[in-house]
Amino acid sequence: MFRESIKVIDCTIRDGGLMNNWQFDDNFVKGVYQACVDSGVDYMEIGYKSSKSAYSRDENGPWKFCDDKDLARIVGENNTNLKLSAMADIGRIEYEDIPPKEDSLIDMMRVACYAHQTDSAIALAHHCMDKGYEVTINLMAVSKVIERDLVEALNDLAQSRVPIIYVVDSFGSMYCEQIESLTLKYRDLMPGKTIGFHGHNNMQLAFANTVESIIHGADMLDGSMLGIGRGAGNCPLETLIAFLKNPKYKLRPILKAIQEHLIPMQQKIDWGYHMPYLICGAMNEHPRSAMKWMAGPEKDDFAAFYDSMTDTQILE
Amino acid sequence: MFRESIKVIDCTIRDGGLMNNWQFDDNFVKGVYQACVDSGVDYMEIGYKSSKSAYSRDENGPWKFCDDKDLARIVGENNTNLKLSAMADIGRIEYEDIPPKEDSLIDMMRVACYAHQTDSAIALAHHCMDKGYEVTINLMAVSKVIERDLVEALNDLAQSRVPIIYVVDSFGSMYCEQIESLTLKYRDLMPGKTIGFHGHNNMQLAFANTVESIIHGADMLDGSMLGIGRGAGNCPLETLIAFLKNPKYKLRPILKAIQEHLIPMQQKIDWGYHMPYLICGAMNEHPRSAMKWMAGPEKDDFAAFYDSMTDTQILE
Repeated sequence: MFRESIKVIDCTIRDGGLMNNWQFDDNFVKGVYQACVDSGVDYMEIGYKSSKSAYSRDENGPWKFCDDKDLARIVGENNTNLKLSAMADIGRIEYEDIPPKEDSLIDMMRVACYAHQTDSAIALAHHCMDKGYEVTINLMAVSKVIERDLVEALNDLAQSRVPIIYVVDSFGSMYCEQIESLTLKYRDLMPGKTIGFHGHNNMQLAFANTVESIIHGADMLDGSMLGIGRGAGNCPLETLIAFLKNPKYKLRPILKAIQEHLIPMQQKIDWGYHMPYLICGAMNEHPRSAMKWMAGPEKDDFAAFYDSMTDTQILE
Repeated sequence: MFRESIKVIDCTIRDGGLMNNWQFDDNFVKGVYQACVDSGVDYMEIGYKSSKSAYSRDENGPWKFCDDKDLARIVGENNTNLKLSAMADIGRIEYEDIPPKEDSLIDMMRVACYAHQTDSAIALAHHCMDKGYEVTINLMAVSKVIERDLVEALNDLAQSRVPIIYVVDSFGSMYCEQIESLTLKYRDLMPGKTIGFHGHNNMQLAFANTVESIIHGADMLDGSMLGIGRGAGNCPLETLIAFLKNPKYKLRPILKAIQEHLIPMQQKIDWGYHMPYLICGAMNEHPRSAMKWMAGPEKDDFAAFYDSMTDTQILE
């Protein structure tokens, strides 16, 4: 599929860091950065922009904060075609912690919010735009949002100046028909906006859903190398790049980074397709209970986890 | 999705055996059998029906042959709702090696063939039907078959008495749009036939493509526990059962078999999503070169495998 408007965002460090509190060594981050540059990926989301009043620097590595001195250690002045992105969570960042674009190596700020936080997200996004950044809003957990509330959020976003809005399958719970329905709804209610898609791989559908979103018009596509990310992880970047035939993208540098950096990382942190994540995805539940189970002594007792989850659903 | 005509076939032993020459111990096979019975799966494909003149019994375990004495050791008289299936490859089975249905525990014979073998497949399938078996024909590697040859094969199959014809994504190379196109073509050219789907997971699309085939009318669906199968493996049965809301299917027995039998089996044989399989899938190539690479000393040098494959494609 060749559509020049398509852009790919690598989320390896940002989403992968959810599994190790962003405690990556510089060699790993540099390897991912170089692979992004060499493969022609459009953006690398290198971490979160957060306030140090919200998170401890002792417990969290540098990519929870994306200070420019840390960025410069990896990318120098970033004299490449790769743009850098950082994510900001509503309520975890103060406006004054965001430097003007001309003082920062970050090119794009992505504001993540739940539907009820849409007003705050628009305000923060407009603030970032006024400081000179490219901006997106990533509306999370829409698989739990009833129609009326979603329409209100999308109508508000349509009125905003924010040019890019993401469909996010936060719980990895959605099938192709839901992706089609949401992508078309976003396009319909927000004419002129670019639509993005960020999937999770609980049911091994992150890549398939990304393709589905492309078919229905999404142009900003998230992936991570070997799918690294919270819980079951994300759309594997390598599947997406193998699919897109746009000549600017190269698969080989990503394969190289996977063999040199991601495969060794699998010995340290355990993301990917596991039964507890599948169960949460199929039940449209946040993966936190699965992540807790996977860190406990009964991690391989999938039937017991299933029982605990079905008991919860019946009681609720 | 509740469509009563849907039937699920577990291929754990048959397709998984391609990775270990069907050298499963009885405890493993019994565990899979019991999980199939308890989960409400419709068929268990327990192996191949092959002639001992075609394959050595020393090199291949019992499920390459599916002798009734071996079957009885696992299933007794199989007084359950689960039906047993065996696959037969054209040219690897003599007619006289197929007992009459009344002397066999096998309920269904599935004939696998390439498009140019369709005439032989129909003859063998009719022979099996005349002996009393349910029968399918699984038309392999259609991602390499040009339109004219595919149409001829489907027209011949339409004229046959064989009631069930499979779309098979042998190389794990197909995307949702190709699944849609093929499923609709099969239905269009073979009115009245039941359509099946068998996927491979090279690009993590086996489950997504199975859902796509269901949407467009496929009713016979293959999966295997934890996706065990040749190379990247199959559609994970657990994802399919979690998706189908038909009340006859239960997920828990499959989870139990996965934790007790499949997770330990992963220590012995290495199937699943690996970069060489992704590369072959994306290139629409047979996984044999990837399997050879994965068995060699450079197995983790994905970039080198990519180079070897792209060199081949340019030279051909």
